[in-house]
Amino acid sequence: MNTFGRNFRCTTFGESHGLAVGAVVDGCPPNVPLAEADIQPYLDRRRPGKSPLASGRQEADRVEILSGIFEGKTTGAPIALLVRNRDVRSEDYDALRDVFRPGHADYTWQAKYGLRDHRGGGRSSGRETLARVAAGAVAIRCLEPSGITVRGRVVEVHAATDPETMEAEIRAARDAGDSVGGIVEVTASGCPAGLGDPVFGKLDAAIAGAMMGIGAVKGVELGEGFGAARFFGSEMNDPITAEGFSSNHAGGVLGGISTGQDIVVRLAVKPTPSIRKAQRTVDIAGKEREITVEGRHDPCIAPRVVPVAECMLAMVILDAMLEQGKYRGFGAMG
Amino acid sequence: MNTFGRNFRCTTFGESHGLAVGAVVDGCPPNVPLAEADIQPYLDRRRPGKSPLASGRQEADRVEILSGIFEGKTTGAPIALLVRNRDVRSEDYDALRDVFRPGHADYTWQAKYGLRDHRGGGRSSGRETLARVAAGAVAIRCLEPSGITVRGRVVEVHAATDPETMEAEIRAARDAGDSVGGIVEVTASGCPAGLGDPVFGKLDAAIAGAMMGIGAVKGVELGEGFGAARFFGSEMNDPITAEGFSSNHAGGVLGGISTGQDIVVRLAVKPTPSIRKAQRTVDIAGKEREITVEGRHDPCIAPRVVPVAECMLAMVILDAMLEQGKYRGFGAMG
Amino acid sequence: MNTFGRNFRCTTFGESHGLAVGAVVDGCPPNVPLAEADIQPYLDRRRPGKSPLASGRQEADRVEILSGIFEGKTTGAPIALLVRNRDVRSEDYDALRDVFRPGHADYTWQAKYGLRDHRGGGRSSGRETLARVAAGAVAIRCLEPSGITVRGRVVEVHAATDPETMEAEIRAARDAGDSVGGIVEVTASGCPAGLGDPVFGKLDAAIAGAMMGIGAVKGVELGEGFGAARFFGSEMNDPITAEGFSSNHAGGVLGGISTGQDIVVRLAVKPTPSIRKAQRTVDIAGKEREITVEGRHDPCIAPRVVPVAECMLAMVILDAMLEQGKYRGFGAMG
Amino acid sequence: MNTFGRNFRCTTFGESHGLAVGAVVDGCPPNVPLAEADIQPYLDRRRPGKSPLASGRQEADRVEILSGIFEGKTTGAPIALLVRNRDVRSEDYDALRDVFRPGHADYTWQAKYGLRDHRGGGRSSGRETLARVAAGAVAIRCLEPSGITVRGRVVEVHAATDPETMEAEIRAARDAGDSVGGIVEVTASGCPAGLGDPVFGKLDAAIAGAMMGIGAVKGVELGEGFGAARFFGSEMNDPITAEGFSSNHAGGVLGGISTGQDIVVRLAVKPTPSIRKAQRTVDIAGKEREITVEGRHDPCIAPRVVPVAECMLAMVILDAMLEQGKYRGFGAMG
Repeated sequence: MNTFGRNFRCTTFGESHGLAVGAVVDGCPPNVPLAEADIQPYLDRRRPGKSPLASGRQEADRVEILSGIFEGKTTGAPIALLVRNRDVRSEDYDALRDVFRPGHADYTWQAKYGLRDHRGGGRSSGRETLARVAAGAVAIRCLEPSGITVRGRVVEVHAATDPETMEAEIRAARDAGDSVGGIVEVTASGCPAGLGDPVFGKLDAAIAGAMMGIGAVKGVELGEGFGAARFFGSEMNDPITAEGFSSNHAGGVLGGISTGQDIVVRLAVKPTPSIRKAQRTVDIAGKEREITVEGRHDPCIAPRVVPVAECMLAMVILDAMLEQGKYRGFGAMG
Repeated sequence: MNTFGRNFRCTTFGESHGLAVGAVVDGCPPNVPLAEADIQPYLDRRRPGKSPLASGRQEADRVEILSGIFEGKTTGAPIALLVRNRDVRSEDYDALRDVFRPGHADYTWQAKYGLRDHRGGGRSSGRETLARVAAGAVAIRCLEPSGITVRGRVVEVHAATDPETMEAEIRAARDAGDSVGGIVEVTASGCPAGLGDPVFGKLDAAIAGAMMGIGAVKGVELGEGFGAARFFGSEMNDPITAEGFSSNHAGGVLGGISTGQDIVVRLAVKPTPSIRKAQRTVDIAGKEREITVEGRHDPCIAPRVVPVAECMLAMVILDAMLEQGKYRGFGAMG
Repeated sequence: MNTFGRNFRCTTFGESHGLAVGAVVDGCPPNVPLAEADIQPYLDRRRPGKSPLASGRQEADRVEILSGIFEGKTTGAPIALLVRNRDVRSEDYDALRDVFRPGHADYTWQAKYGLRDHRGGGRSSGRETLARVAAGAVAIRCLEPSGITVRGRVVEVHAATDPETMEAEIRAARDAGDSVGGIVEVTASGCPAGLGDPVFGKLDAAIAGAMMGIGAVKGVELGEGFGAARFFGSEMNDPITAEGFSSNHAGGVLGGISTGQDIVVRLAVKPTPSIRKAQRTVDIAGKEREITVEGRHDPCIAPRVVPVAECMLAMVILDAMLEQGKYRGFGAMG
Repeated sequence: MNTFGRNFRCTTFGESHGLAVGAVVDGCPPNVPLAEADIQPYLDRRRPGKSPLASGRQEADRVEILSGIFEGKTTGAPIALLVRNRDVRSEDYDALRDVFRPGHADYTWQAKYGLRDHRGGGRSSGRETLARVAAGAVAIRCLEPSGITVRGRVVEVHAATDPETMEAEIRAARDAGDSVGGIVEVTASGCPAGLGDPVFGKLDAAIAGAMMGIGAVKGVELGEGFGAARFFGSEMNDPITAEGFSSNHAGGVLGGISTGQDIVVRLAVKPTPSIRKAQRTVDIAGKEREITVEGRHDPCIAPRVVPVAECMLAMVILDAMLEQGKYRGFGAMG
């Protein structure tokens, strides 16, 4: 299932070391001004190779809009977004052809499909998120006239919470041939109350599904999240005043529907599974092997999860607005 | 959206103080032996009024199978499950007609629909989960010949983790006119490897969406979950040996696909929002009010979330098995 | 798949000789005045036993609304509609237990499911359409404030086109222990232009799928339909004037989207397959048998297809209006 | 809605005079040998400019597979198919910018979207079917090991039924600056019994929806189709013998499920709406205009509908096989 969303539908395709990755966005409202320049900055943020701490893969990742735009505006027709792959060093992966990397999808995809494209993780590569980001950038553009913005950041790395210590943790892990996990927080501001569709289309359920579907994410929480388990009801409930809610422990969702406050989501990101440290595994014949994963890998994937989480959240919100008929759009269009 | 699932589809209906609640299960495999007696025990477990600590509502909650069974077996036709409501004291709720209870769906449903059935929460009541449990019991029955079982339990209440202290915490909250949160853990055993459908139909994403869609749940995690943010990659990755994985930090899912190990999920359950303690809120006209929620309410909802979470997990797993063509079923049928 | 529709979703359940048939309507807009009395007349029109020419089954078919209504109005919650079965004479069907009736679903359902409820056709019985009609009556009610009406009629029976000859054809077939086919025309008036969703959600495609899914329907056409194959383009194209289209050869749909003119659909209805005349068939073991189908059957099913086709068309149109955000509804609600 | 199918899902994109048209196929089984050479012949058959009677647009229409293939076989990942547009003479269409062509989607798309890409019909162009054909060719390839084949042909043009007269009719229409309609018949052979999913997922309903969704199609029938309206039941019912059905009036589907016989579908194709003859219409401001449509257009579109109808039918059948778990595939793979 490579399609996400019910009204704003994003279908992604492409493998890490294939010809291209891309997305088709269907259900985009008409009359939205859109050009490659609206999408490219989000791809650039997601791109590896931007800091000495990140993976060294150097790709331009230039997006091309193939359809759905006429005279600078969306028409309601599907928008095909294409990014050709470059700088593909498949030979790096030859050693991994018949071996299952621990912590990766290698073993499970083999179990499911009976065969797999092992080069760079193939379809299960983090590179697939590039297509989500391209589609999400379209959603973010659509949300502009509604005054809705989405912002994410890394709030924790290996228990550290201030930027300097976080960076030190990443550096230490890299130097040890290891990796570390972290926590990402994403906030959507400006959402109207009333988004989400009970009982099985709740906004928080849609967000949880979207976020847990990002590779390396092992947990999702809204508002107080797991902390709520330690609250009294009298602490957790957000009082309502004539000016609105006076706190936001709920994280912007009650009964599965948006309250109009900030929607606050946190994601637990596991350590990058690709590490140079030796690990025990088996090959496709079941024979035990020791593996050290070479190649270019981020020692902490949390920073690169940020734009992906933002884009997924934007798509969920736009989808809900379209579902509820709350999308108003640009200018005169109905 | 009151339908859950893609292949095993459960549609629920009914309000807390209406005539009935129920579910229609569509996509159930044929040839599964099924009777009311297979479903009733799950409803009984979910039922309130079973301990001095729980809500006092006394309902028989007898399920009736209206369709889809012929000579004691499912036929592949939709299975309608009906539970008539009794012991409905709507007058308890008259005072709440025009007031938004903090922490409840009252405010957001009014924002979405412009009107609402205020009696006992109407459609947003926890009573709706009765229908999910009935449908989930069918899924659990279907999973039997595959050797798959699902078991949940409360693992934490207000930071307490041993049963006696948990019970004391609940009692203390009740006596204070307050409520407390907790954590529920659900484990599915016996699942084959290969369940789940990348990129947007991942098993863990489906689980997260299903769990976050249960009322009062504010967080979901698999395996190490948020703890993974504090791990090194060399700690988090589960080594693979000739005998299989030698640990299960992943919680049974890698790359969105089941590994064949136990699937371990934890849910953060917020404190019951209905409390006797006075709270600030507004009425439908925006006028500030003080509210004390009377009526019969559990001071900790976590124990009653357990069977709901089990049933949702069973439905997700059966759905994935049907998607992958991995369901084998009872006896001679294909 | 027992659910129809994307936005206004109707899930039906129940067998001919089971306890009940019914439907759950999900996605109904809130604030629509609705009671049993709005639905019952449609069930009465569909009901057999109303003329000496029709099947003799005498059923009250009283509908009960179990949920989704509060103080006389829809709330946006699912509407469960239940009709208990009565007057069930299952023993009539004992002789058919192991025999496949020609022209019926008996053979194909056995092939698909490996077992079946043979009593009166079980789930494949025409009685299932009762549930569609109940749900469609809700759609018709929803369409009222938009000024959209749907009307059907039998326009041909066994090549006869005037009412008296049509009735004579039916009578003759009945007396011969045989049955005859016919053509039904359904027209929706008052639809706005702009309904339908290219490329794979076209309005005419949705209508065709809905109509062909009615039992006994073997063909569907819009506007000139098969007659268009004998037209010149200069005859077929509807000229557009300042007052609008000056003809309606298209039947109200161009490029898959409504033009604002009447939507005109015709259905080919095959002769009722249940006939008293002897027919050749086989039993479940493959042994050849001669069969004469006793019991109460309409010699021409076209008249009873009329309300079903009206209701399906109403559901398709309401669904499209909700999809396009063109539904305005009753009174002040958004 | 630009996605077709539930299990084998085809999403198309692209406009007549944009950069490219294409499709993303999701849900394709793994382990299917596939290359551009398997798809290209179907595009060549669909291509215009192959006879003196057809539209003169000369395009290579070379398909490129961008993803989903590894070492010559499908992997289960989405298959992106791209055809770059060439030979685009947009200026031909400048005169049509603000005018609605009768019989086209111009008026209705403007009503729906408020703006449109007028160049060559934009997204509503017949060129979009190129993407369906590319995706359908993949489905046809997947069906090979099951022995299922799909074949279509023109069986009638403007009432003529022999090839020579049909060609004469087309030639005469062209010379008169006019166009003519026709009837296409498509037959699928080798389908197993048991395909299709009652009540709302019937095989014939899916076929009808798929076929009516092809531009210019105004009617769809199975087996005897509209002719069945003139049959007695004793003529229409296909007798069943120990060797199987002894006739196929049903056209291969009973009760919405395949019988195992040939599935026979006929489509009514209206005359090409683009004609040189003068027609009355209005412009976007509502002012009356006379229009003569220049450019390259087929005087009869039926021949070019043939490969499109074949491909849609193949997709419906493969989808149903995947739904029922009846797809067996190539070689050792499950």
